[in-house]
Amino acid sequence: MGISVKPILWEHDTLMIIDQTLLPSVLRYVEINNLSDAEDAIKTLKIRGAPAIGVFAGFAIVKILKGMTVKSTLEAIEKMGEVCGRLRRTRPTAVNLFWAIELMKKYAEENKEMPLEKFFKGLEKTAIDIYKREVNACRMIGIYGSSLIEDGYSILTHCNAGALATGEYGTALAPIYASAEVGKKVKVYVDETRPLLQGARLTAWELSQAGIEVTLICDNMAGVVLKEGKINLVITGADRVAMNGDTANKIGTYSLSILAKYHKVPFYVALPTSTFDLNARTGNDIPIEYRNPDEVKKFGDSFITPEEVNAYNPAFDVTPADNITGFITEKGIIYPPFEDNIRRFVQDK
Amino acid sequence: MGISVKPILWEHDTLMIIDQTLLPSVLRYVEINNLSDAEDAIKTLKIRGAPAIGVFAGFAIVKILKGMTVKSTLEAIEKMGEVCGRLRRTRPTAVNLFWAIELMKKYAEENKEMPLEKFFKGLEKTAIDIYKREVNACRMIGIYGSSLIEDGYSILTHCNAGALATGEYGTALAPIYASAEVGKKVKVYVDETRPLLQGARLTAWELSQAGIEVTLICDNMAGVVLKEGKINLVITGADRVAMNGDTANKIGTYSLSILAKYHKVPFYVALPTSTFDLNARTGNDIPIEYRNPDEVKKFGDSFITPEEVNAYNPAFDVTPADNITGFITEKGIIYPPFEDNIRRFVQDK
Repeated sequence: MGISVKPILWEHDTLMIIDQTLLPSVLRYVEINNLSDAEDAIKTLKIRGAPAIGVFAGFAIVKILKGMTVKSTLEAIEKMGEVCGRLRRTRPTAVNLFWAIELMKKYAEENKEMPLEKFFKGLEKTAIDIYKREVNACRMIGIYGSSLIEDGYSILTHCNAGALATGEYGTALAPIYASAEVGKKVKVYVDETRPLLQGARLTAWELSQAGIEVTLICDNMAGVVLKEGKINLVITGADRVAMNGDTANKIGTYSLSILAKYHKVPFYVALPTSTFDLNARTGNDIPIEYRNPDEVKKFGDSFITPEEVNAYNPAFDVTPADNITGFITEKGIIYPPFEDNIRRFVQDK
Repeated sequence: MGISVKPILWEHDTLMIIDQTLLPSVLRYVEINNLSDAEDAIKTLKIRGAPAIGVFAGFAIVKILKGMTVKSTLEAIEKMGEVCGRLRRTRPTAVNLFWAIELMKKYAEENKEMPLEKFFKGLEKTAIDIYKREVNACRMIGIYGSSLIEDGYSILTHCNAGALATGEYGTALAPIYASAEVGKKVKVYVDETRPLLQGARLTAWELSQAGIEVTLICDNMAGVVLKEGKINLVITGADRVAMNGDTANKIGTYSLSILAKYHKVPFYVALPTSTFDLNARTGNDIPIEYRNPDEVKKFGDSFITPEEVNAYNPAFDVTPADNITGFITEKGIIYPPFEDNIRRFVQDK
């Protein structure tokens, strides 16, 4: 029992990621060697999941800068500004990307005077620290979250907020892994999560690899599964959470929160505190990414609808704090009133 | 403007249907020549949609019996019992199949003494009457339903309850066609309707053919589209409605009804009165068809999830009467209290 899949590998200056667009039929690591590799990897969702994108950005900055011929720390910092600017523009919603970039820039700002080699060592250590922090956060999310899960529980989740979406272990899936590790019998229902099927392709795959019983449903079956009393708990991840608790997450999370509320099933969001955005007062402050309508109009390579038909493709939606029972973080579970409690939990973010 | 697609053609003893599994990439009529053709056509969804299955069953009975070498009316009626029994077992939820078979059997019971040739003529006329009755019902549904649609309205629908699901014109789409015909500007949002994508493949196609503006969304986007105030009205079809108003329709309809209620958007069900089941007191009396889990696990020929993963695949769900604003029928719009009003409307079904 246990999950060992690591979406990001960093060793001896080599950065490799699982190309998640190929799962579950192909498990392949690809190397990231330069800025356009890194931009492409984020934009095309080879790497995805808010915490994983943050961790990836840290390593990518190190890898990209080391691959450039820079002669001084100041030059490295100058180039880094450019690199960070381009990485920031890859995807707008998940906040962890910006958070990780800020930590890397903060290190650089504070170490301008350092000789180049030592600067790079410290920059790498900063990236590794981000990675370790997020992985440890996932472990703690697992520990706190598993307190909500009784033996025999069935949990409904959406999209992929598992090991593949973080460094290891996951956010929404962490409480499930942690429960399974201590011998609780847990069962997971997962929404397939159209248009890109992260539930079917990634969550079902990683749970199945870990030996956890998983049942795939279409997104439109969540209502019936809840009505039939099959679900004890809904847990999703988050891409960005405002300070009032409004939560941006994969499209469909909002609908799911309404369905859970209607059926009086607790709805939890699991996340490292790095996913809270101190600058977003409410969900209105969170920018939503709209992706290519062809993702909706196609399934794989073929059109499922006439080419001339319009499609709408918001990649995320915002679940109002009102629909959320609690936030499972590495520092504990946050319950309402969120306005006060979130601030208290993330003050030292 | 206008829709001319006819999923079922009956001419000179030839029965042809559009193979709806091939749409929208291929528009092809296939001939139905015998009982196994007919069973296969229903089971594999070459023909689908509650009213269309009923109409199809009428013609199929005529075609199949005429293809058998029967020597007397009594022999024809005996064979007909067998044919009807097999057709009844193709799909359990949509009631129109049983309703049409009962009308055909009633004709036979009442005309046992008739010479064979005349018997067949009358049998064919019965099938044509069913067809005409359903097409006329759709026209009237369009007229009544269009009274709910103002110029500039956007309507959200689920699955396909259009011309392809009936003889012509449709149920849920009839008010839209009727509104467009009188020059109202209407816009349609359609859920793609996993697993078999009837919204993307069929509804988007037939609306687009008719020149009506259509926007495709994934099923999990309905909540957001409603939240954004994009929708004035939700209209779906029905496969079977109990006498208290509980409505079996394509999986996902139940979730959609909850989302509409949450956003205070009216939710109408459009249907010919043949879709009411006098024998079903509530939704609990409606059998739900569970289809092959591979429909969820595969897209086209390829798995989207590990083969060993379980999937759940109810083809329909039941929307409680409480979530329904009204029923648009060929006899008018039925509002609550449904218990009394449905009975009054369908007494002479």
